[in-house]
Amino acid sequence: MSAPALSTVRVGDELAPLTRTVSQEQINAYAEASGDFNPIHVDADFAVAVGLPGTIAHGLLEMGILAEALSRWAGSADRLMSLEVRFSKPLVAGGTITCTGRVVAVDEAEGIATLDVEAVSDRGERVLTNGRATVRLSG
Amino acid sequence: MSAPALSTVRVGDELAPLTRTVSQEQINAYAEASGDFNPIHVDADFAVAVGLPGTIAHGLLEMGILAEALSRWAGSADRLMSLEVRFSKPLVAGGTITCTGRVVAVDEAEGIATLDVEAVSDRGERVLTNGRATVRLSG
Repeated sequence: MSAPALSTVRVGDELAPLTRTVSQEQINAYAEASGDFNPIHVDADFAVAVGLPGTIAHGLLEMGILAEALSRWAGSADRLMSLEVRFSKPLVAGGTITCTGRVVAVDEAEGIATLDVEAVSDRGERVLTNGRATVRLSG
Repeated sequence: MSAPALSTVRVGDELAPLTRTVSQEQINAYAEASGDFNPIHVDADFAVAVGLPGTIAHGLLEMGILAEALSRWAGSADRLMSLEVRFSKPLVAGGTITCTGRVVAVDEAEGIATLDVEAVSDRGERVLTNGRATVRLSG
């Protein structure tokens, strides 16, 4: 992955959209990593009983996919300085999430770009909204 | 977990601090969940070669622990409406992270509390800073 040079980044530049299908296996792995075994994530019968269409991904797992889209654009994960999102709609296991972003400010003195970011599902639902990221640029 | 009633939450209320040791096994599980197998997270020799004290946790895994501290306070994960952090210092595998937070605003009309949140390591380093969360309250 090659980082964009500070001098070439412009307001309006867009992230390459990153699309990922989130399997129940990934959700289980995230439950293991995070210790969050809430049954809405890992028990389909329970999820349906509480009115969900099925088990849903952890919000932080979705946010991790968004962070990956940013890291790819930035050239490495350690360039992602800050990240903010609103958890708007759930992503059902087996669903697909597409993360997008757009540069809204470039601070040339500090070498930092600010991006608006979001994620939508293949159901057309806005999963992560009001996203904002700051990224340290190279060069 | 019992959610705090809107009427009882005051500016200055604090989260119960949540302390977690992050093992290499958890980092490996998070790599599996996220697909982020960057060797700084999973290859100790590589991590040392690039100047780190050892493999480090994914920033989003740290953020997940912070989200858990918030979810415990809120009574359930789906009350966490938004989360923002700055990734300031890395957390080394086997290290311990302690997440804290404090209510800085209560919007009684909307039923929303805003908290300043952060995480420090057992090395005394500020791992996650400039954190801000919004939580929907019950009642």
